[in-house]
Amino acid sequence: MTRIAVCAPSTPITREDAARVSTLAAVEFPGVELVIHEQCFAVEGHFAGSDEARRQAFLECANDPSIDAVWFARGGYGACRIAEDVLAGLTHAAQDKTYLGYSDGGYLLGGLYRARIGRPVHGPMLADVRRDGGEDAVRRALGFLTGARDGLEPSLAGTRHPVVAFNLMTLAMLGGTRLMPGLAGHVVMVEEVSEYLYAVDRLFFHATAHLGGIAGLRLGRVSDVPDNDRPFGADAMQIARHWCERHSIAFLGAADIGHDAANRIVPFG
Amino acid sequence: MTRIAVCAPSTPITREDAARVSTLAAVEFPGVELVIHEQCFAVEGHFAGSDEARRQAFLECANDPSIDAVWFARGGYGACRIAEDVLAGLTHAAQDKTYLGYSDGGYLLGGLYRARIGRPVHGPMLADVRRDGGEDAVRRALGFLTGARDGLEPSLAGTRHPVVAFNLMTLAMLGGTRLMPGLAGHVVMVEEVSEYLYAVDRLFFHATAHLGGIAGLRLGRVSDVPDNDRPFGADAMQIARHWCERHSIAFLGAADIGHDAANRIVPFG
Repeated sequence: MTRIAVCAPSTPITREDAARVSTLAAVEFPGVELVIHEQCFAVEGHFAGSDEARRQAFLECANDPSIDAVWFARGGYGACRIAEDVLAGLTHAAQDKTYLGYSDGGYLLGGLYRARIGRPVHGPMLADVRRDGGEDAVRRALGFLTGARDGLEPSLAGTRHPVVAFNLMTLAMLGGTRLMPGLAGHVVMVEEVSEYLYAVDRLFFHATAHLGGIAGLRLGRVSDVPDNDRPFGADAMQIARHWCERHSIAFLGAADIGHDAANRIVPFG
Repeated sequence: MTRIAVCAPSTPITREDAARVSTLAAVEFPGVELVIHEQCFAVEGHFAGSDEARRQAFLECANDPSIDAVWFARGGYGACRIAEDVLAGLTHAAQDKTYLGYSDGGYLLGGLYRARIGRPVHGPMLADVRRDGGEDAVRRALGFLTGARDGLEPSLAGTRHPVVAFNLMTLAMLGGTRLMPGLAGHVVMVEEVSEYLYAVDRLFFHATAHLGGIAGLRLGRVSDVPDNDRPFGADAMQIARHWCERHSIAFLGAADIGHDAANRIVPFG
């Protein structure tokens, strides 16, 4: 039996989404026990409960020796407010676990990777069930947590380098903080959603300045770009190439990740 | 005679706005000669001409010994793409000048301050003439450049520390780059516009991690905050206090700066 604990370090999920994923898991993954923490439904302003409530729920899941994996319920924003305190509260039981999420969850994945705690993995979250084709995203996550490897990002098969994947905004915000892992020698994959192209360019200006010594960069999908009052003059791929050239970073092409149901799995390391 | 060169390191202005400010200057500031570089009207995608055109125009203004001040035409986005190359191209003539702007212009102000070139100053730009009360903002800028000191941010009179002012996004993006000045011992003022409060919180998470050792932080106006699908749960002042506390930074209260016509002047240093 694989016991998967779900908590919400950022924003809350609905009971309906939780029930839908629990049913899918019960029907299709008989080897999975899904333990959804009540904190996932808490609401305090923007967040799934106070910083203290979110921190405590994460620690309860991560420090429980009977749990095999901690699955982030949803992104949105908020994990950066608790990540340092979470890391300070982890015990030995947190070491032997997989931590699965993406987007705003990247603050925790990055911090865990820096602290060499557990196995941080970029991949679909519970709330992705809401997307078009979202049940497939959930299947990919639960499949990975029970040993399947067909959901892995395809370029992983061909690289000899350690790999990480981040939302571009999250990676940009991590730079220079106590959560930023050393990424020298890594292939770094980034994706973005709902940002103007000028903001994507700005994030690349910043993020690439913090990526000296990486093995290369891959660009996932940059989706739901809002229309600006004028065209930017370059697409996301051209922007990525521009900033990689400026910082002598090898640009390795596309990555099959993004804020969508097709988002593939990238185990860190 | 004070010769003020105007160039556009970020986005273009209209000939109408330029004419309006030229007329105001001719009528009210007889001691000013305004030299508006043709590059201010260039358009290439998002920008006021290519990176090369913007870089070259800035250098023509900054390296001209007959010019007393370089006034940024407008913000928007783009100065970070040229700032390092601009710094590399400045000559001795660039040293004895004032550089006035804000918002996206902060990348250049920060880089100039780091390189100890000239006198970087946060204050109104030419394009501010478009705002409600914008002619007063232009008068404040031209007044400062001709020796008036009544447009200065009021808290400057009471501080013994060196001071800088930045747009919060710009300061967050500067952190860890080759443009970021050392700000130990400084009072740092920040302001923001058109960002969700969760994004303001995220920017504070990041920016305060790069502000260790500053003398204190002041918060300017955080304006035109879009409505999110739910309330954030804290206002901008509470957000600033939260992150200052996390990083043991003294929070000093409000600053009279912002993306508006009342935006006051803050000479760096």
